[in-house]
Amino acid sequence: MEILKGSINSINGIKAASKYIGIKKSKNDFLVIFSEKKANAAGVFTKNKVKGAPLIVSIANLKDGKAQAIVINSGVSNVATGKKGLDDAYKTAEIASKELGIDKNDILVASTGIIGKFLPMDKIKNGLIGIKKELTKNPDKICESIMTTDLNVKELFIKEGNFSIGAIAKGSGMIHPNMATMLCFIATDAEIESNKLKICLKKSVEKSFNMISVDNDTSTSDSVMILANGLAGKVDLQKFQETLDFLCIKLAKMIARDGEGATKLIEVNVKNAKSQDDAKKIAKSIVSSNLVKAAFFGNDLNWGRIMCAIGNSDASFKQDKVNINFNSEMVVKDGIENSFNKENAINALKKEEVKVTIDLNDGIFEATAWGCDLSYEYIKINAEYST
Amino acid sequence: MEILKGSINSINGIKAASKYIGIKKSKNDFLVIFSEKKANAAGVFTKNKVKGAPLIVSIANLKDGKAQAIVINSGVSNVATGKKGLDDAYKTAEIASKELGIDKNDILVASTGIIGKFLPMDKIKNGLIGIKKELTKNPDKICESIMTTDLNVKELFIKEGNFSIGAIAKGSGMIHPNMATMLCFIATDAEIESNKLKICLKKSVEKSFNMISVDNDTSTSDSVMILANGLAGKVDLQKFQETLDFLCIKLAKMIARDGEGATKLIEVNVKNAKSQDDAKKIAKSIVSSNLVKAAFFGNDLNWGRIMCAIGNSDASFKQDKVNINFNSEMVVKDGIENSFNKENAINALKKEEVKVTIDLNDGIFEATAWGCDLSYEYIKINAEYST
Repeated sequence: MEILKGSINSINGIKAASKYIGIKKSKNDFLVIFSEKKANAAGVFTKNKVKGAPLIVSIANLKDGKAQAIVINSGVSNVATGKKGLDDAYKTAEIASKELGIDKNDILVASTGIIGKFLPMDKIKNGLIGIKKELTKNPDKICESIMTTDLNVKELFIKEGNFSIGAIAKGSGMIHPNMATMLCFIATDAEIESNKLKICLKKSVEKSFNMISVDNDTSTSDSVMILANGLAGKVDLQKFQETLDFLCIKLAKMIARDGEGATKLIEVNVKNAKSQDDAKKIAKSIVSSNLVKAAFFGNDLNWGRIMCAIGNSDASFKQDKVNINFNSEMVVKDGIENSFNKENAINALKKEEVKVTIDLNDGIFEATAWGCDLSYEYIKINAEYST
Repeated sequence: MEILKGSINSINGIKAASKYIGIKKSKNDFLVIFSEKKANAAGVFTKNKVKGAPLIVSIANLKDGKAQAIVINSGVSNVATGKKGLDDAYKTAEIASKELGIDKNDILVASTGIIGKFLPMDKIKNGLIGIKKELTKNPDKICESIMTTDLNVKELFIKEGNFSIGAIAKGSGMIHPNMATMLCFIATDAEIESNKLKICLKKSVEKSFNMISVDNDTSTSDSVMILANGLAGKVDLQKFQETLDFLCIKLAKMIARDGEGATKLIEVNVKNAKSQDDAKKIAKSIVSSNLVKAAFFGNDLNWGRIMCAIGNSDASFKQDKVNINFNSEMVVKDGIENSFNKENAINALKKEEVKVTIDLNDGIFEATAWGCDLSYEYIKINAEYST
């Protein structure tokens, strides 16, 4: 596996256009991803019962397992906008279809930003007019155009054997297991049938974007979409799955690290659990606990809060068998405080990536979840977002 | 119903002693509540699978529905302390039984404070020696002795017909539906059988302490205990339930308002739901959302986050029938933004008590939950708690 400099547009046959159409105050807020060849396509979407209008359109247009373009705006999420919002999302696909000269059912749409406001359709329309000519192999600021409170660009390009996968992602707040306020768009030149593509994507999402938490809120707009244009021909499916897993986990970690106000990435690995589900529940419960997150922000060796979070999960475990490690320092052994080197443990907490390992000594299953600390900056960002 | 100045010790036949025994840096950290007559008793405890040792002892000693004293310390919670912790909790009851001259099975124990540290048994023992002589009808600082990060005293004394109920409570962080890091001790002179007392207590807790959230973490030490010494004779059971409900809701609101770093109380009333359970789930989901809480701190009219929290609950509702009101200002009608007076809505947010009403227009059930905003101060308190 080779990680190269590049993004979603580095894939053969994929072009994009990124631009400013006036929804955000400044910075690019509009992106079109285009596959020269109609591609097999799949998507995974939020489990929040309040779904954004764009998701409803994309889910409908993915029914045939085909797509050729994705139209994305940031600034307004087109969620809780009723019938007009849904009409606007369909209208966006319709305008794009005319401009791109492709079937309107082959267009996926996505929006991210504030909830409850209508899409400025005049700006969307102006943005789309003549877009075909603007598509290039090397667009500027492709990832920036889908960012909201994100601080860092999240993109990845990987070559593996005869195929490549490239992706961009965004996400910073409203992020919780079962997808985040996050968008991720993936393209590959691998030749894979739509139904297999969907299974691969679901598997990867389960291990990656569904295992991160910034603030316990599952957004109304979460979407991961993949286009497979087949230009590279048939591929080894297992290799493809491994590469897609790697890519999604890498992007998910970038999102967790870039959590609103975060000063560090927290990786929680739960091992020797009775079942996969128990391992997952405990890992997620820890990265989701405000008290744990605030303690990490303060470099505070408060392992009791981790124990509390373990107990709050719905998982099966034996309290008197639990070991807790901060990096290589075992602070809890058999459920009670271990004698450990306090300086080493605090140094572990001070790192930009803190690794917490929970050994349940109760089985053979494991899971990893990622999150970030909870800082003053999180409050600042979220107390002042819409106004 | 008459709300009078008073506390748990205002009940006939109830005495208490509050003192400093050296667990906390300063301030009283030890309390004994004593019923001159052996009382019928009941308790409700945390659902966290990691339970503090004191809870295990109190649950065992409540099996016969009788108790005569409660011994409480703050500073150390005696949680995640293994066999030694459990021995210490039993030992506390044993020493108290000798000093008070009552059966050791009639003693309930409770501890609150940091997790993972052993009780300083020498200090507990010194505190208990001669305690019987220290019991008075009007002890000093009875509520202060069970406080941790609490800022305000939470106590209540109510007279209703021929009986009275008095209580103290603590709780400020690690507070979430299904009980909080909270302790509440209630006494009444009503004559009620233990099994009926337990049912009444459970019903009241369900509507009060289980409907508040400060930070989504259900603590390992949550306990509500009630002693009914029967001195007032038989009572009207319905009146008793109503009074107990009122008392518990009042104390629960005090706890939510005193949430760590809180600047305001948030009351969320969900009405016209399809079922009681749906109403509860939605009300809890809203008061538990970090994003909603941060928006309230910033007086930010971000109703989209409320809609997102509604969708994140596991409840049934129809998105296009949802109305959202901030005090009397309807900001969302039929699921989309209403035309409303922005100034009025922002003024509603600026109050010390913000009332959010969600009308689901989908049934006849309702529920209320309470929480607080999420401020910089919460982070400060929780990043620096144990060190």
